[in-house]
Amino acid sequence: MCAQLVSQTVALGERSYPIHIGSALLQRGDLLLPHIRSKKAVVVSNTTVAPLYLETLSATLRAGGVEVLPVILPDGEQYKTWETLNQIFDALLRQHCERKTPLLALGGGVIGDMGGFAAACYQRGMPFIQIPTTLLAMVDSSVGGKTAINHPLGKNMIGAFYQPRLVLADIDTLNTLPERELRAGIAEIIKYGLIRDAGFIDWLEAHLPALLARDSTALMQAVARSCAHKAEVVAADERESGERALLNLGHTFGHAIETGLGYGSWLHGEAVAAGSVMAARLSQNLGWLSSDEVARVEAIFAAAGLPVRGAKLGAARYLELMRHDKKVADGRLRLVLLKGLGQAVLSEAASEAQICEAIAACC
Amino acid sequence: MCAQLVSQTVALGERSYPIHIGSALLQRGDLLLPHIRSKKAVVVSNTTVAPLYLETLSATLRAGGVEVLPVILPDGEQYKTWETLNQIFDALLRQHCERKTPLLALGGGVIGDMGGFAAACYQRGMPFIQIPTTLLAMVDSSVGGKTAINHPLGKNMIGAFYQPRLVLADIDTLNTLPERELRAGIAEIIKYGLIRDAGFIDWLEAHLPALLARDSTALMQAVARSCAHKAEVVAADERESGERALLNLGHTFGHAIETGLGYGSWLHGEAVAAGSVMAARLSQNLGWLSSDEVARVEAIFAAAGLPVRGAKLGAARYLELMRHDKKVADGRLRLVLLKGLGQAVLSEAASEAQICEAIAACC
Repeated sequence: MCAQLVSQTVALGERSYPIHIGSALLQRGDLLLPHIRSKKAVVVSNTTVAPLYLETLSATLRAGGVEVLPVILPDGEQYKTWETLNQIFDALLRQHCERKTPLLALGGGVIGDMGGFAAACYQRGMPFIQIPTTLLAMVDSSVGGKTAINHPLGKNMIGAFYQPRLVLADIDTLNTLPERELRAGIAEIIKYGLIRDAGFIDWLEAHLPALLARDSTALMQAVARSCAHKAEVVAADERESGERALLNLGHTFGHAIETGLGYGSWLHGEAVAAGSVMAARLSQNLGWLSSDEVARVEAIFAAAGLPVRGAKLGAARYLELMRHDKKVADGRLRLVLLKGLGQAVLSEAASEAQICEAIAACC
Repeated sequence: MCAQLVSQTVALGERSYPIHIGSALLQRGDLLLPHIRSKKAVVVSNTTVAPLYLETLSATLRAGGVEVLPVILPDGEQYKTWETLNQIFDALLRQHCERKTPLLALGGGVIGDMGGFAAACYQRGMPFIQIPTTLLAMVDSSVGGKTAINHPLGKNMIGAFYQPRLVLADIDTLNTLPERELRAGIAEIIKYGLIRDAGFIDWLEAHLPALLARDSTALMQAVARSCAHKAEVVAADERESGERALLNLGHTFGHAIETGLGYGSWLHGEAVAAGSVMAARLSQNLGWLSSDEVARVEAIFAAAGLPVRGAKLGAARYLELMRHDKKVADGRLRLVLLKGLGQAVLSEAASEAQICEAIAACC
């Protein structure tokens, strides 16, 4: 086996788990099977990803003596609902799945979030494995144990912290990722640079063309560096009582866009890009960033082909939606802002008027 | 404050929490308020309990400067569903509840299980307080962090391990408990004697008349001794990988009765009583209990006015329903059986034929 492989660990004591990043990993029974201690396994995927990769994964499992029970869901953020989640529960119960039966999520962030939440809740917890097939899921949602479904009144409102036993990121699956989703994934990669790694911003400015051209070496480097950041943050603050909240740069603004337009209109990464620009602008208004730095933030997202202006919902509607977000404490909006490039802070410093001003300037 | 009070601790490291058992505890702001670090609190209750105790509890909270947001659900096991759970989520979101807003469950096991699961999932976890008002909830479900809802194909199939910050058991609330529910609660108390405390069986045989007459000293002693057992077991095995499973004596048989008849037909404690007799009979068939001991098990449940014969579903139907239960590993039924009174074991020793024989003998 000569495929490239980078392995990392999310250090959470007895709940620690490996992240493997590389080529042709769906074929690697040696990486997968040690985490499956059951004669059968459930694979949750969707109608887009399953035709591409389910058979490869299933063949690897079958070769290890594991029967595969596929659960194929419709594709899209609009299906990240209780109703779809219940389809998983129905299948698990009808097939007599047990507490020890592992559930593998093969797909992007929606499949990982829903599969993980199903695994967290079914019989109060079954083993869970993340096999992300989108760039966004590889660098963000598959690592760290956040699982959830949406509620009509808010995104990711119903969920659990539930760590996987393994994250297997097969870079080859990015070859079939639509262009728009590739760019959306890059938004979360840029985010790591902005919040905690100024050197990564430099690297990204130099390597964006290679990433957009799907150069596998560049992709592996970007995914590995992003996962290393995510793993470090999660190990330090699993339940988001402190540092982990910094990963939400642009997310409170971004969630407002996603909820305001209805799920599925903007991709999550697109909303995060525009939201990060808003956060940068607000940071400038507070005197924390220079106009050159804000321009650099805009430029890097724009170079990745991502939106740098928010949806025109009106600042009042943004505020209303942001108040529904989880990042609220005793009624005061707590936002991730930048005190410099590569240095994020969680802050309640901005008044509602200042927040509205930044939103208006970026729509 | 001269009311009697017994306090215990569930020892789970940084997630340890107190259990307070006593009279007039709903009025005790000194016990409640230290666990509420928010200006508002959600109280989940039902249409039976709320008219009796919500105002007393709310007055205590308001006197401490905490605004109360009540969520009143219909009463009954048949409402322990996703639809009812969603009513809680809707209320939490409409009232802009935050991640730090505490949720208090005021009621029996259904309210505690659903309120706890809602608290576990809302924004991936909000602080949770158990205020049990039934004997069954006081001695069993309110302690230990098991939360769940039912699924049409199985009881408690969807849930979470989620520990409360506090359990407040006000014995006075038992004065309004219907006779049948009092008896059902006693079934779970007897269970502690059968699985791990032979001396408690002697005590119960002597004090059953006092318990049935709602003598408050006897009730406090029974609740405290039961909670001490529960706390000890949970501290040793929070996620039911070993010893905790012994608390399920009679439950696999009992769940079959509950599911087979439709939720709400038999009370949980009634099903556990009949199920425990089946488990005792099966233990006798395996040569582990004498016929005198089985007769003593039957007699104590009968003296508490509990059923000692199961519903006539037919042994095959029992087996089918039991296979849906969570206590199954690689297809083999794993049951809690007795190797003596006060000494439970988790065992796969019984064949399907032996299980059927015990069921048939007890229906």
